[in-house]
Amino acid sequence: MSATHLAARYHRAGDVHAERVERREPRAGEVEIAPLFTGICGTDLHIAAGHMDARVSTPAVIGHETVGTVSALGEGVSGWSVGDLVTVVPLRPDSTCATCRNGFSHVCDHLDFLGIDSPGALAEHWVVPEHTLVRVPDGTDPRDAALLEPTSVAVHDVRRSRLQAGEFAAVVGGGPVGLLIALVARRTGAEVVLSEPDPTRRDLAAKLGLEVVDPVTQDLSALTRERTGGAGAAVAFEVSGSAPGLTAAIGALAVRGRLCLVGIHAAPREIDLHPFFWRELELLGARLYERGDVEEAVRLVAAGELPVADLVSHVLPLSRVDEAFAALAEGGAVKVLVDCRPEGRA
Amino acid sequence: MSATHLAARYHRAGDVHAERVERREPRAGEVEIAPLFTGICGTDLHIAAGHMDARVSTPAVIGHETVGTVSALGEGVSGWSVGDLVTVVPLRPDSTCATCRNGFSHVCDHLDFLGIDSPGALAEHWVVPEHTLVRVPDGTDPRDAALLEPTSVAVHDVRRSRLQAGEFAAVVGGGPVGLLIALVARRTGAEVVLSEPDPTRRDLAAKLGLEVVDPVTQDLSALTRERTGGAGAAVAFEVSGSAPGLTAAIGALAVRGRLCLVGIHAAPREIDLHPFFWRELELLGARLYERGDVEEAVRLVAAGELPVADLVSHVLPLSRVDEAFAALAEGGAVKVLVDCRPEGRA
Repeated sequence: MSATHLAARYHRAGDVHAERVERREPRAGEVEIAPLFTGICGTDLHIAAGHMDARVSTPAVIGHETVGTVSALGEGVSGWSVGDLVTVVPLRPDSTCATCRNGFSHVCDHLDFLGIDSPGALAEHWVVPEHTLVRVPDGTDPRDAALLEPTSVAVHDVRRSRLQAGEFAAVVGGGPVGLLIALVARRTGAEVVLSEPDPTRRDLAAKLGLEVVDPVTQDLSALTRERTGGAGAAVAFEVSGSAPGLTAAIGALAVRGRLCLVGIHAAPREIDLHPFFWRELELLGARLYERGDVEEAVRLVAAGELPVADLVSHVLPLSRVDEAFAALAEGGAVKVLVDCRPEGRA
Repeated sequence: MSATHLAARYHRAGDVHAERVERREPRAGEVEIAPLFTGICGTDLHIAAGHMDARVSTPAVIGHETVGTVSALGEGVSGWSVGDLVTVVPLRPDSTCATCRNGFSHVCDHLDFLGIDSPGALAEHWVVPEHTLVRVPDGTDPRDAALLEPTSVAVHDVRRSRLQAGEFAAVVGGGPVGLLIALVARRTGAEVVLSEPDPTRRDLAAKLGLEVVDPVTQDLSALTRERTGGAGAAVAFEVSGSAPGLTAAIGALAVRGRLCLVGIHAAPREIDLHPFFWRELELLGARLYERGDVEEAVRLVAAGELPVADLVSHVLPLSRVDEAFAALAEGGAVKVLVDCRPEGRA
């Protein structure tokens, strides 16, 4: 085992770059994987912009959306072999807090999120607890599998919304997670319309076969009512994180409609609660995923039931990870993957 | 049948008084009842204060919380006999709108609410559609049965919250509906704490055997966490309609906790959505009741399982209905009943 490996580290606002860092061996109960592709997430962008400096200890190896192969086993690890294709559930709950005891360890009160609170996957090697591994069937395209983590988010959100086949769902926000929610919702058998102001994202959604609305020129509420005999959407996913997006999502709902809150609203929002009372609406917060969601995402992606690779706009080698972040910061990119394989090996 | 009867009519802000008005016979499909007791509701107070002039056509016979006996049958009505003890589900949906077609006729898009949109129960006689009647078992104390309508609200709210035996519920707001929610929640087998700033209401709640918190001097969130191993409440009922009440209800919740929104928030509220996302909270709007809720309320009240009559602070004859409204406007009253029986008959 070489003493160092290449990894992307966050140093300070605007500075994420690849450099050689010390590599550590897996301890008892841990597994080392060799990431093939690691996706860059909105949270990684927040870290790179310096918004999460209170939480992230620098220099920090970041990244948590990955597919890789097992490259070394710590003591006592059984059931895994070197070469196994895996994805990682990047959550290490404390297992002892009230939230864990109530069965919601994915949002543990003291959650260690791998790639944020501890070292991450934008590296040639990543050491993780054995319990975080999920097997990916042989033959799955690794570029598809690299989207398993955001797909797990989408599976979780759709499950939280209790969306049923035949129901109408509005997705507000067409970034990677919004697109994946729309794809998973469609796979559920729902009718789906996606609202997104950015024309590039709308084009991609249309290529994915989704019905698309431009909120600047079209009325989501009117369209939804027209398509549902006047009732409105059974489910709306708020994925924009914006005040107008929130208003549009609420406005699209039928009586007893469910608003699944996915986007992050950091600042308080002025909200008219009257329709929640008058029309008996529900709001359902959704964060991350549970292991069952990841397993379902693996099943869907491995079976080719979701065209997730179509979301990938850029693939760059780990040595050029700074360019990958720059492409996302500039806009126009959708999902950017970093090829973490040692160069020359690929 | 005498040509006139005594009824309480709303004329203009601050003016509800009893007067003799024309009495009409039940038409086909209608039943005339003779109300025994009719309760005054918060909505009636809003009408009396002039807040609902845009909706209410004056002069208006108001009132919708009643128990009475069947006094006359319209053509084609079967299954009911003069003298039957009944309560009324005061809702006439159009049965044709999208909301009705989806099975939510209690919040019909064009709901005719008897006692608001059409004549009500603060009268010696009330003509209602046959389908609105619900039988009350013989032997039920009419003063208990007069609280069936707000009890139906409470049953509906608790059902919407999916509260289970053994769960912890916080009720924010100790007016009649808050108290009834607390009683129904306790009957469900939940642990219940009620938060209410008014000392008279707190005293009544304590007499009902409820655990009570003064939000001015006590921390509902801390108490709830102390009682739930640090987790927080599974359910919080927001019945205060106030901004601090809303904040307290949200703050009391455990991860995946359900906020049941009962109080009316007419103005938009500044709401921090972050805990909804971070802790996967739910918000569930709840309005009125479905027929099954009323039937369950009848079952609970007839069986004496809820001490509802303890909420009655005043009983006044229909001829003094103006004093009944004044007592409520002054504060200090909890549930005020109007005895609608012709004087001398009681």
